[in-house]
Amino acid sequence: MTHGPTFGEAFREQLAALLAWRRDVRHFSRAPVPAEALARLIDNACLAPSVGLSQPWRFVLVDNPERRAAIRENFKHCNAEALAAQAIDRAVDYARLKLAGLDEAPVHLAVFADRSTDQGHGLGRHTMPEMIEYSAVAAVHTLWLAARAEGIGVGWVSILDAGRVASTLGVPADWKFIAYLCVGYPERSDDEPALQRAAWERRRPVESFLIQR
Amino acid sequence: MTHGPTFGEAFREQLAALLAWRRDVRHFSRAPVPAEALARLIDNACLAPSVGLSQPWRFVLVDNPERRAAIRENFKHCNAEALAAQAIDRAVDYARLKLAGLDEAPVHLAVFADRSTDQGHGLGRHTMPEMIEYSAVAAVHTLWLAARAEGIGVGWVSILDAGRVASTLGVPADWKFIAYLCVGYPERSDDEPALQRAAWERRRPVESFLIQR
Repeated sequence: MTHGPTFGEAFREQLAALLAWRRDVRHFSRAPVPAEALARLIDNACLAPSVGLSQPWRFVLVDNPERRAAIRENFKHCNAEALAAQAIDRAVDYARLKLAGLDEAPVHLAVFADRSTDQGHGLGRHTMPEMIEYSAVAAVHTLWLAARAEGIGVGWVSILDAGRVASTLGVPADWKFIAYLCVGYPERSDDEPALQRAAWERRRPVESFLIQR
Repeated sequence: MTHGPTFGEAFREQLAALLAWRRDVRHFSRAPVPAEALARLIDNACLAPSVGLSQPWRFVLVDNPERRAAIRENFKHCNAEALAAQAIDRAVDYARLKLAGLDEAPVHLAVFADRSTDQGHGLGRHTMPEMIEYSAVAAVHTLWLAARAEGIGVGWVSILDAGRVASTLGVPADWKFIAYLCVGYPERSDDEPALQRAAWERRRPVESFLIQR
């Protein structure tokens, strides 16, 4: 019987602060992220939970300038469409929100979930095949927290056409697009979500999310 | 300009230990989880990232014995089907894996994603509506890490028929089932995934998950 580490009150307080100060970062300094730091983040991400130990996360480091430009165009196109779908008064706010750190972030990291992996032998995926995607999401979130602990910011861009991202990056057809992450040192640090600061939306009380059965 | 906390080397080491020692727990002691501890976990979970600040996570604390029994039957039925889908030699292993802490865990917590929420005003969901589900997954993972930091274990049961879970728990039709969590004090602590200990699957090297483009 192994006991493993116990975590004290001081650690729990710092963990709560980490959760509170993690932000979806849109404004980055251009300072490069050291390769060893990035490697540590990916190491940590691979400790995420995965269904059947399938580890379906696939990380694509996007360095090529033409590919980055194609992703930027993809975002611009989808953002214009999303803008058109908003009510007029909201659309004005929407247009003001700078929705992507694509131009500033030194590191671009796309994340996919490999739906065809046989790692895990299908365990836990019989009724919920989407557990493969959920596992990749857990890896993204792990990377995000580990990044904030190093003072590195992450922004998750979801206003993209997934099929075009996959073809721009030339990944296998079975890879489901999960996230396009902008990674770099943030311009500022905050414990209030940017969308709340921008009066787009506000957090609701915890009680509104919990019911008993 | 706010600066916020900086996290030192000692915290990062403990965070890495937390990630390494988080486990998908299947064996629980019957000791109850204090209500304040559970409330803290849900508080922390609500700090998870969510698309457009939509906070689409919905937690259902399942206390009613009839409902718990119905979930158990749901699992038994789906598990038998999943077992039939495995190759014979694997099926023997599979049958040996105790796949649910449903009988032992003092707390049962179902998690859903509210696809119809207008919180967030649709931001970031135009091309990827599944961001709603992914946000609820991030909340599950946040709760999981906060639990481990308190010495509390979490097991994610995915071998369930989602439609039957929703009807057993009587939740709105727009709520997508994400996870059924068993929560309690673990019987043991480990830094090796149970499925690796059971020789079902092993972790692969990080390099196998990373490509450059």
